[in-house]
Amino acid sequence: MVYRNIRLIMSYDGSNYHGWQRQKNSLSIQEVVEEKIRMITREPVRLIASGRTDTGVHAINQTCNFMTQSDIGTEAIKKGLNSLLPEDILIKSAEYAPHDFHARISAKSKIYEYRILNREQPDLFRRKYVWHIRRPLDHVKMSECLGKIMGKHDFSSFKSSGSGVINSVRSIIRAELQRTEKHLLFLIFEADGFLRHMVRNIVGTVVDAGLGKISPGDFKGILESKDRTLARFKAPAGGLFLMEVKY
Amino acid sequence: MVYRNIRLIMSYDGSNYHGWQRQKNSLSIQEVVEEKIRMITREPVRLIASGRTDTGVHAINQTCNFMTQSDIGTEAIKKGLNSLLPEDILIKSAEYAPHDFHARISAKSKIYEYRILNREQPDLFRRKYVWHIRRPLDHVKMSECLGKIMGKHDFSSFKSSGSGVINSVRSIIRAELQRTEKHLLFLIFEADGFLRHMVRNIVGTVVDAGLGKISPGDFKGILESKDRTLARFKAPAGGLFLMEVKY
Repeated sequence: MVYRNIRLIMSYDGSNYHGWQRQKNSLSIQEVVEEKIRMITREPVRLIASGRTDTGVHAINQTCNFMTQSDIGTEAIKKGLNSLLPEDILIKSAEYAPHDFHARISAKSKIYEYRILNREQPDLFRRKYVWHIRRPLDHVKMSECLGKIMGKHDFSSFKSSGSGVINSVRSIIRAELQRTEKHLLFLIFEADGFLRHMVRNIVGTVVDAGLGKISPGDFKGILESKDRTLARFKAPAGGLFLMEVKY
Repeated sequence: MVYRNIRLIMSYDGSNYHGWQRQKNSLSIQEVVEEKIRMITREPVRLIASGRTDTGVHAINQTCNFMTQSDIGTEAIKKGLNSLLPEDILIKSAEYAPHDFHARISAKSKIYEYRILNREQPDLFRRKYVWHIRRPLDHVKMSECLGKIMGKHDFSSFKSSGSGVINSVRSIIRAELQRTEKHLLFLIFEADGFLRHMVRNIVGTVVDAGLGKISPGDFKGILESKDRTLARFKAPAGGLFLMEVKY
């Protein structure tokens, strides 16, 4: 039996899904895409993603892979899937990958972006895609906090409460604030890996520094404490985008 | 009895509504907003808009007015409505207006914007807010068509099929193409008034010129024919935004 390994790059609007991972009683992106792949390849399939995204989190370029015995071409897979998938999931590319390619294990780094709309007026048309914060944010203080997470740290302070992960050490390659449009702030994070809720916990705490509720020094203290109970309000899911997975 | 005239400026995402106008058996923006005003003023209310928008059409600044005997302040009306309204309707301002102010009759001109995404890849996050056109559009030819509608014309060729309007003459003050972001085209129209479906019929025909299916000369011929059956495919509702009403 000849198996081929297919790598998919996909974009999805997470608003209507209970996250990436397949689960009982609620609709996941994994379940929807696996079902459509099955319709095309006519065999059971297990789709592996670079990592799970939580309920309401979006992806611009999520990378996945699956093994198949089907000999359907990659272009036909891409077109077939896009014709079957709902309008909030898009396959951007389908390619053959080496047999040892594994979307999660092979990943070298991931880039997440967190989007904040900082003005009095909300934007209806972005309501599922930004965190709307009315009070003015101090960009300098926020950037200062972001500087403090650069490099290798134990991120226990920013992991999710129920997390059973033993090793909480991650290396941050990039953590910066960008202003591309007026009132829009993008917080960009690249790391060799992220703990569950890590980006949203960091963003919530960075925003508290931007609002003057804590100082960048307090932020550093929270990071170094490795005490999960010190981190602040977790930023809402809708502002978070998985931008890219590097291999 | 003292009546006050309240002017509202509101923004809405038309995706989940059967247009502005109240109707049986389907949810309209007018019905939703009137119901919330009633909850605040505790009296029956009739909300007048500058004009109807169709199913799926959006508004950045729709202007409305209503008469009320209630003495609730305008700031309280705005805040109260925003706390009651669903997240796809936003009151941007509430102000007292002169008694003779009528959102429709007093309007001097209206500005509509039609948004096109012109590239191979769709954009999931804008799927309800742009018309996605894959084939490259010729901007020069489209601008040429837009130039031909400037001024006073009988727009019978571009009115809706079921339209019973007798006077189809409208004056176009502005008709231009803007490129604000890569791959994004905005077609902007300002006129003293618009016939039903007029913008979408014009855009559909301008796009046919942009695709080379007709020439700008053909476009002019269609305009001058006053024959509704000659206009091309009506552009989809989701790309259309009511931007501003001038008084």
